[in-house]
Amino acid sequence: MMSLLLSRRDLDFLLYEWLDVEQLTKRPYFAEHSRETFDGALDLAEEVATEHFATHNKRADANEPTFDGERVTMIPEVKRALDVFAGTGLMGAALPASVGGAQLPGVVARACFAWFQAANVGTAAYPFLTLGATNLLLAHGSPELVERYVKPMVDGRFHGTMCLSEPQAGSSLADIVTRAVRQDDGTYRVVGNKMWISGGDHELGENIVHLVLAKIPGGPAGVKGISLFVVPKFLPDGARNDVRLAGLNHKMGYRGTTNTMLNFGEAGEGAVGYLVGEPHRGLTYMFHMMNEARVGVGGGATALGYTGYLKALDYARNRPQGRPVAAKDPNALQVPIIEHADVRRMLLAQKSYVEGALALNLYCARLLDDEHTLPGSDAHLLLDVLTPIAKSWPSQWCLEANDLAIQVHGGYGYTREYDVEQHYRDNRLNPIHEGTHGIQGLDLLGRKVVMQGGAGLALLGSVIGTTVACGAAAGGELATWAASLGAAVTRIGEVTAALWGPGDPEIALANASIYLEAVGHTVVAWLWLEQALAAGEREGAFYAGKRQAARYFFRYELPKTGPQFDLLESRDRTTLEADPAWF
Amino acid sequence: MMSLLLSRRDLDFLLYEWLDVEQLTKRPYFAEHSRETFDGALDLAEEVATEHFATHNKRADANEPTFDGERVTMIPEVKRALDVFAGTGLMGAALPASVGGAQLPGVVARACFAWFQAANVGTAAYPFLTLGATNLLLAHGSPELVERYVKPMVDGRFHGTMCLSEPQAGSSLADIVTRAVRQDDGTYRVVGNKMWISGGDHELGENIVHLVLAKIPGGPAGVKGISLFVVPKFLPDGARNDVRLAGLNHKMGYRGTTNTMLNFGEAGEGAVGYLVGEPHRGLTYMFHMMNEARVGVGGGATALGYTGYLKALDYARNRPQGRPVAAKDPNALQVPIIEHADVRRMLLAQKSYVEGALALNLYCARLLDDEHTLPGSDAHLLLDVLTPIAKSWPSQWCLEANDLAIQVHGGYGYTREYDVEQHYRDNRLNPIHEGTHGIQGLDLLGRKVVMQGGAGLALLGSVIGTTVACGAAAGGELATWAASLGAAVTRIGEVTAALWGPGDPEIALANASIYLEAVGHTVVAWLWLEQALAAGEREGAFYAGKRQAARYFFRYELPKTGPQFDLLESRDRTTLEADPAWF
Repeated sequence: MMSLLLSRRDLDFLLYEWLDVEQLTKRPYFAEHSRETFDGALDLAEEVATEHFATHNKRADANEPTFDGERVTMIPEVKRALDVFAGTGLMGAALPASVGGAQLPGVVARACFAWFQAANVGTAAYPFLTLGATNLLLAHGSPELVERYVKPMVDGRFHGTMCLSEPQAGSSLADIVTRAVRQDDGTYRVVGNKMWISGGDHELGENIVHLVLAKIPGGPAGVKGISLFVVPKFLPDGARNDVRLAGLNHKMGYRGTTNTMLNFGEAGEGAVGYLVGEPHRGLTYMFHMMNEARVGVGGGATALGYTGYLKALDYARNRPQGRPVAAKDPNALQVPIIEHADVRRMLLAQKSYVEGALALNLYCARLLDDEHTLPGSDAHLLLDVLTPIAKSWPSQWCLEANDLAIQVHGGYGYTREYDVEQHYRDNRLNPIHEGTHGIQGLDLLGRKVVMQGGAGLALLGSVIGTTVACGAAAGGELATWAASLGAAVTRIGEVTAALWGPGDPEIALANASIYLEAVGHTVVAWLWLEQALAAGEREGAFYAGKRQAARYFFRYELPKTGPQFDLLESRDRTTLEADPAWF
Repeated sequence: MMSLLLSRRDLDFLLYEWLDVEQLTKRPYFAEHSRETFDGALDLAEEVATEHFATHNKRADANEPTFDGERVTMIPEVKRALDVFAGTGLMGAALPASVGGAQLPGVVARACFAWFQAANVGTAAYPFLTLGATNLLLAHGSPELVERYVKPMVDGRFHGTMCLSEPQAGSSLADIVTRAVRQDDGTYRVVGNKMWISGGDHELGENIVHLVLAKIPGGPAGVKGISLFVVPKFLPDGARNDVRLAGLNHKMGYRGTTNTMLNFGEAGEGAVGYLVGEPHRGLTYMFHMMNEARVGVGGGATALGYTGYLKALDYARNRPQGRPVAAKDPNALQVPIIEHADVRRMLLAQKSYVEGALALNLYCARLLDDEHTLPGSDAHLLLDVLTPIAKSWPSQWCLEANDLAIQVHGGYGYTREYDVEQHYRDNRLNPIHEGTHGIQGLDLLGRKVVMQGGAGLALLGSVIGTTVACGAAAGGELATWAASLGAAVTRIGEVTAALWGPGDPEIALANASIYLEAVGHTVVAWLWLEQALAAGEREGAFYAGKRQAARYFFRYELPKTGPQFDLLESRDRTTLEADPAWF
């Protein structure tokens, strides 16, 4: 039976027929690998995700973690699944051999992780948060910190968190007030309250390694005075550190992941913390990992959209209801709803969103591999521009896919007896965390497309230009799509120039979210042309489906950018001029 | 303190300054009324909704009804609220004095009911379902049935349901298999299973009056063989009728309303039923009430969007976070988030959706009044065209408003500590029930715009044309908007002709949902021009806000229809030609 989590056929197409990841094995860093080891990891991920993660997804949603003032309780399936996961070694799939990793390409690891996110995003969050902490410590921690914390995290014995937000400081990290005071022994004492900390407390392992942003008194104001600390739940001598769970947040979805308010140093002079790297460079370190973290969030959104799509497809093929519009005989048998054009429209939309998002996700993961293993590559520049899109586009459109998956199911989709309503609730988190949709817009238009004199945007334009040229050369329908895509890219350039022309950031950024969305749709149209080119004229339902989804995207989706570009180019001031008193 | 449910100021504007409902008191049917009685009803609705419905909205969501195999249990606040509601007499607000009603205009009653839907859509559903049953019986039931069931329903002692769907027949009512066999005494015995029955069982009153669609053996096939029956839970002699609760559906939202599977006649020869009107006319009777029911669903969607907007606005005014984009000093105080352009964009979008939807809702309710009390009026023709939009547009865009309300709240909006995530979950039902989004599209393009030689669409074009002329005459910005609106109306005509030109319903209807959305946005643009004209150049924040929301709608929203019209005009076959095997 075909999996209803992800399509392995599609993954194989994207990895091998499009991104040619086998080529990576020619690089020394990946020399131990081959298609066989890649396939082995993918097989393993699918199997474990299917058998140990998907199986308690609904139960974890219906029985969210509870806190009795002393400890956090959750259903036992979570720990069992994580123990199995730890045993697979997938945690270290893309980590260096020096810390016990398998040194697989990140793009293959990303594809593996997508299986877990599709199966159970709430349980999968624990190891993925831990992996984020691992990567951060590996990049910036001292050898002692790496020795003490990274290996147990890779083994699945310790878990990790990222403690950035505070009750009064979410999008505005400059305003955090958690303080860290240096002690004579070189350690710090951390005092403050952190908010929205996923995995902030639980009993899934032996220790929790909190990576905490805090300010060292006397440092610069704002974001320049932020430092990064390791604050473990249990100290090296086994004593309990002064990190206390103040309470759990009760969410609409993503319920399997404990989300917490944590108090540091409430009981005394502070929680013991260890500085990571140098003082005042905490946010820089965080931003170093941000591309990867944001691509990961986009991947989670994609996985939820993808599994919802496959479930809607399965339902549409099996649910009889109604007859063709031209049918006259009320006694004729009902047809499966996939026979209705409007249902096919909803399925094609979902297919174009989720497969487009997966292409974007893996493309970015591939760029991360280039960044890490291809010296002199400009992958980082391209990735910087694509990251806000890789985070926000799937968060918006794969949520839309989940909405359509409910709609395909009709009333059944609105009930908790089916899966899709949970995917919709789970996915609604993604436009909020790891930088909201609005923050991504500011990042793209206010920073990424202007930095280095616009070099990132120019590079993106040139990369897309190559695809446009291939599409034009292919002729026929692809040439038409290439022409539309080329025109959209030209408009991005014009609109960006028009927005920044007056040099007033307030006007330039007033509609940054719409800019983000228009550029995002253009980027995904590009990836659909790429996929259509990779499919070529090959025969069979799979390739015909790729061409049809590309067709859908160029006919139904890309044209939506027209009015967006028009609005942006007009430097519309409607939102700026709306007086708060008028609402 | 300003209400966070609805804006009374906006209701007053729409009712008195725009729709001029006071004029209705000149009609004999409403002669007993005056602005004072209208205001009294609105005051009462606001007060009772605020004090008795809003107060248990979250609790009802967190504690959905349960069924132990014998009886349905729900939190006691629901019955208490309904008893208070019954005491107000608002149930009969728009019903004729002959059955104990207050004979208020339906448009005023609709505004009153919106308060309850905004406060607690799950509890409000019980009386509104009952009202639907009341109206149906009043229109088509025998005097005996009216006497026996209508009065107790108006008094709030009996409740009502609509039993249409079956497990195998939702959108396709032709396929219901519930049977009703005539007995010698003129009653019927009803046997079958009904699905998705809201309010199907509970202990909120003395009896439940099920209005059931069933087929009398020997009748015509398909929808022409459907008849309508009253099947009460308790028979006139007090005996339990053979209507059994098979189980509750567990929904994503709207949890306060029991939604059930009911078995009729499981235990013996059938549940006792009484034919309403003539045999085989059941669906015709239902469709008679459909306009009103669908406008009511649109009203519920609107109310949920509206309260979410007001809560987002309140949050945005009070939550400090970040600084203006041009601010340099990290030590400056944070500003309320309403100061950020992107937050204002999200608020303006919500305002334009929810106030636009409320205008549409009340406009349609006003047409229903004309239909009922203005002999010779063509209100019915216009209402027939507007109904699929009045149902679907708020269901789509006020859900979008709820999505934006969550986004304005950031992480807090994703938690159950705040209200907006519940509104989003509750509102997600609306594109599904009372005819899905896709069914509304088929109704509009396949039936309403072609019936009577296109007279309904022509009438809509002429009514909008009058507004366009007023806008043009007003000059300035309004003239620009009027020109855009006029162009959109022209395109509707062209596109409709292009779609039906070849006379092939399969091609014409392939993108009916997109047609629905494009026409819907044009209609709401029209209602925004209407509101801008009603606001005129009057001073004050309220009118400035109306003008700004209209400006937003014309600049950000109406242009979205351009690519939709282009796609429709091309008679795109992408969805038709997508082979089910390609997915």
